Amino acid sequence: MFKKVCIIGCGLIGSSLARAIKKYNLSEKIVSSNRSDIVNKKVLELKMVNDSSSDTQKMVQDSDLIIIATPLSSYENVILKIKNSLKSGTILTDVGSVKEGVISLVEKAIPKDVSWIPSHPIAGTEESGPEAGFSELFKNRWCILTPSKKAKEKDIDTLKSFWKKIGSKVDIMDVKQHDYILSITSHIPHLVAYNIVNTSINIQEEKQSDIIKYSAGGLRDFTRIAASNPIMWRDIFIQNKTNTSKEIEKFIANLEELKNAIENEDGKKLEEIFIKTKKIRKEIIKAGQDVSKPDFGR
Amino acid sequence: MFKKVCIIGCGLIGSSLARAIKKYNLSEKIVSSNRSDIVNKKVLELKMVNDSSSDTQKMVQDSDLIIIATPLSSYENVILKIKNSLKSGTILTDVGSVKEGVISLVEKAIPKDVSWIPSHPIAGTEESGPEAGFSELFKNRWCILTPSKKAKEKDIDTLKSFWKKIGSKVDIMDVKQHDYILSITSHIPHLVAYNIVNTSINIQEEKQSDIIKYSAGGLRDFTRIAASNPIMWRDIFIQNKTNTSKEIEKFIANLEELKNAIENEDGKKLEEIFIKTKKIRKEIIKAGQDVSKPDFGR
Repeated sequence: MFKKVCIIGCGLIGSSLARAIKKYNLSEKIVSSNRSDIVNKKVLELKMVNDSSSDTQKMVQDSDLIIIATPLSSYENVILKIKNSLKSGTILTDVGSVKEGVISLVEKAIPKDVSWIPSHPIAGTEESGPEAGFSELFKNRWCILTPSKKAKEKDIDTLKSFWKKIGSKVDIMDVKQHDYILSITSHIPHLVAYNIVNTSINIQEEKQSDIIKYSAGGLRDFTRIAASNPIMWRDIFIQNKTNTSKEIEKFIANLEELKNAIENEDGKKLEEIFIKTKKIRKEIIKAGQDVSKPDFGR
Repeated sequence: MFKKVCIIGCGLIGSSLARAIKKYNLSEKIVSSNRSDIVNKKVLELKMVNDSSSDTQKMVQDSDLIIIATPLSSYENVILKIKNSLKSGTILTDVGSVKEGVISLVEKAIPKDVSWIPSHPIAGTEESGPEAGFSELFKNRWCILTPSKKAKEKDIDTLKSFWKKIGSKVDIMDVKQHDYILSITSHIPHLVAYNIVNTSINIQEEKQSDIIKYSAGGLRDFTRIAASNPIMWRDIFIQNKTNTSKEIEKFIANLEELKNAIENEDGKKLEEIFIKTKKIRKEIIKAGQDVSKPDFGR
């Protein structure tokens, strides 16, 4: 499919991509660039790539597909390094979770004949780093493309087909719509998970062991999400701050309503809300986004 | 172990208990009482019990162990029905998630020679009803006992041994401490899950399908918890309203702090908090309360 693919940043997502490209034989050559030489050594040891170095400029040369898989806050720096080494006609994509800010930042910086097509694979685990990746991470997952003005139609088709070949379902979306929808389905849930875990550990030290011991009652499930990559999430919230901030306000207003209902022992209202939220689970299972296998803890 | 056990309410927990008692051969006879005759018929069909009827008074007669497994708001009514039919020396327990209110309610109503020892098995799934139960539900789960003043030492030992025989680890806890710790590890996480799902579905109808479609990014995991039994949770929040209310206030204050950090692009503060919450996950895995198997969605 490609002659040379360059992955910038071999964390969970980048290393999973390298593995998937190799497994499905989608490029003659795969290279990566990582700031840390420990990572460059590791990915070579794991035989995920043919070459890897911290010299990003050198690594991107002659690549047909370049994938930025670093935290959002590093894009400016990455682009600065690579913008003069991009092959004419190359496809440039990323895997970031927020799009509006970076799409124009990159658009302005790169040459005209580069097709800049941001991608967002809705896939991940709470693990980080090159050893946490695996080739099947994208299987049956949605990948959203938000093509920039500098995206050629044929390149959008190529990138679509690339994601499909590694198992994803692909959607094209408007960039504003993407950031809004994802703030609801992903960013706020993560922020709330971080917050509930942070709140639960701010108690007297002698009670902390009880919190851990009885965490299966619900808290446990939040700690999984709240163990996600701190740097990645710091950047996501800041990049999507307008949507995040608005949604938190709605969330707090609704939580205060629930609190009032509890204080007034308004069982009818609570019941109404809980019946409504139960329904949405069925729709998610119907849409194939989860399985109905039960989880434990109460 | 017992001659006759009576389970009042064969929902997820009650029916799992019936199955476990049968499997581990812990009673010569198992009976249940359910308000609904459809349930009474169902549990007989499923051969979980030897007898079942809506006549609770009749069902409890001559039982050595009686387990209340109905929503908390029905306890008053249940006790009213059974208090004059309790065998001298019987052990009375429940499986409710909040203890302080009901412990004295029942204590006042029952005869002196009945051992009232509330239990709280920290086990459950988001499924409800007699068909959702299974005998292994309590395996490796904590069960907390909060013995009342009307609990004989030898009966506490018997009940402990009962829970251990069906696979649980048993702890004895002060009733106030129980309600406080569980508000943090279970009640607030559930309330927040209900609230996040409720907030996410309060958007324009044409965007709802996108919310479902991309729910694997985090929201999905909350919908699982927010699909738990609405009646049960309505009662839990109201019964534990003082703790719940206080903890929501702390949660909201912390969330507002996070919101300010995002608005001010205070990356350092966000990072600090997210690194702290990541650590707690490791402790939970170390304590055997979850596995480190990764989950999906970002």
